[in-house]
Amino acid sequence: MTFSLTVLGSSSASPAKNRFPTAHVLNIHERFFLIDCGEGAQIQMKRFLNIKCLKFNHIFISHLHGDHVFGLFGLLSTLDLMGKTNTLHIYAYKDLEELLTVYRKHFGENMNYDIEFHPVEPYEHYTVYEDGNITVETIPLKHRVPTCGYLFREKMPPLNIYKDAIEKYNLSIADIEHIKKGHNFITAAGQEISNSEFTYVPYKARSYAFCSDTMYSETIIDIIKNVDLLYHEATFLDDMRDMAQQTGHSTTKQAAKIASKAQVRQLLVGHFSSRYNGNMLQQFTKEIQSVFQNANIVNEGETYVIPLIKDKNKNKNKSESAN
Amino acid sequence: MTFSLTVLGSSSASPAKNRFPTAHVLNIHERFFLIDCGEGAQIQMKRFLNIKCLKFNHIFISHLHGDHVFGLFGLLSTLDLMGKTNTLHIYAYKDLEELLTVYRKHFGENMNYDIEFHPVEPYEHYTVYEDGNITVETIPLKHRVPTCGYLFREKMPPLNIYKDAIEKYNLSIADIEHIKKGHNFITAAGQEISNSEFTYVPYKARSYAFCSDTMYSETIIDIIKNVDLLYHEATFLDDMRDMAQQTGHSTTKQAAKIASKAQVRQLLVGHFSSRYNGNMLQQFTKEIQSVFQNANIVNEGETYVIPLIKDKNKNKNKSESAN
Repeated sequence: MTFSLTVLGSSSASPAKNRFPTAHVLNIHERFFLIDCGEGAQIQMKRFLNIKCLKFNHIFISHLHGDHVFGLFGLLSTLDLMGKTNTLHIYAYKDLEELLTVYRKHFGENMNYDIEFHPVEPYEHYTVYEDGNITVETIPLKHRVPTCGYLFREKMPPLNIYKDAIEKYNLSIADIEHIKKGHNFITAAGQEISNSEFTYVPYKARSYAFCSDTMYSETIIDIIKNVDLLYHEATFLDDMRDMAQQTGHSTTKQAAKIASKAQVRQLLVGHFSSRYNGNMLQQFTKEIQSVFQNANIVNEGETYVIPLIKDKNKNKNKSESAN
Repeated sequence: MTFSLTVLGSSSASPAKNRFPTAHVLNIHERFFLIDCGEGAQIQMKRFLNIKCLKFNHIFISHLHGDHVFGLFGLLSTLDLMGKTNTLHIYAYKDLEELLTVYRKHFGENMNYDIEFHPVEPYEHYTVYEDGNITVETIPLKHRVPTCGYLFREKMPPLNIYKDAIEKYNLSIADIEHIKKGHNFITAAGQEISNSEFTYVPYKARSYAFCSDTMYSETIIDIIKNVDLLYHEATFLDDMRDMAQQTGHSTTKQAAKIASKAQVRQLLVGHFSSRYNGNMLQQFTKEIQSVFQNANIVNEGETYVIPLIKDKNKNKNKSESAN
């Protein structure tokens, strides 16, 4: 029941020495979701991830700036080379569709898999994807072009039932199935017993919010409230607030302030301007941690695991985990 | 009077661990020419070259496979970010133009420099570019899609004049200028003296031939005859001749045989299949050198200098250097 994030790139638009642009791979229960696909993403996958690219069936693009999308076309060709046959779903602002069409015309006429394009409305907060395990919501961001982040939420897992309650009430298989769906139990004598007497949430549903690129925007706080892991861009150190504002980006302390106000569990920042070399990134760590303690800068290639927290307390947790 | 090649990528289409796809930077007299632009080319430039990208005014693309062109769009955006204002000339098969148009529509509407696209006819051998110092000729190659290599030739440098001849014939400034243009000299007594008595070629004109991607093709031999440096793809070791033939590529020994038949000075091979890891590349070296001694595999980031060979022998060299 993995829930982990591997960061493949940490640079912003101008190429920085030994840094790659944005691409994040989210592993949820061994299904892989790619978020943004900067140039060289597939090279970084080859370097850091022991997965075959063809496991990707869903790619989410935040916005159409080159450092978030120019690795996509190479990856699409590689997926074909590697034998992909099932449909690839791409979620992005509508303009990407024309690029995909021209790409396919010149590079992918004989590709062995289909691409289904899902236009995303970046100014609205809504569920853009859902399956049995997760939902993905848009996070409207404030950048120079239409941009949204993505919030991945594990669905609340099925309720587990206390063994001693089965014995105590002599429950049948049918009773158990009924109770596991969240219903209360009616005894033979007609007494209604609350579902919470029988069940517990086996673990807390986990969540990851990806917010890049954006200037400081408090409107996202309600959306990302209490997430386990927040990635928020921090292109600049805090003395560059004016530059951040002008270019539609955030500073270290702004990112950390969002994390603090949203009461997230952990913050990662990235998308560093090329003006900062490797050593200067220590200052990023210092500044974010001065505002929000459980915060770090991303390391390219590192995998950040959101642990599965088992919790056998009665299903009072249900409401928490659904936040 | 530099003439050097920096190789930025050595892999073929499938991403290989720690290798980048094809991109070559040729420095001729401190003017930079980019040949192919695989994904991540600008990242490699940042890593290995102490030049600002904006010095590129000419980009030559061999063919429209992703591993030779998907780094182009990121580079175009970066050139703009870095303040480029003068026109960029791109030479490639005609289909690239539509991709450039769509790129500009979605990513480069407000770019501060113009792109002039020069469609190349890959099945013909002709001079596709010329300036005061060099010519660039196409080299028709045999691949799965329209493909050509490029042959960069330094022009023969202006003739130098022997100082003792100036004294011996008491030449005027006007006489010297006339002789330097290659004319014979007529003495006051009406005697015609051969230009070769007065002049010499100060150094041999240098040349670089880029041949990727291609299956074994002897038709290129006459075009690349005697070049100083030949880059020829060798995607496979020689036991994979059938696979090479099927995919429109060459093996080690095939590349070396071309070098031998064309009597080039030095051979470099690259474009290695991802099936070969770093250690296995030693076998590439062994196989190419078994056929052609002055041969090596490319190292990413390495710069190969073609030295300037001064030659004060009488201008018998003229014909050689013009080969």
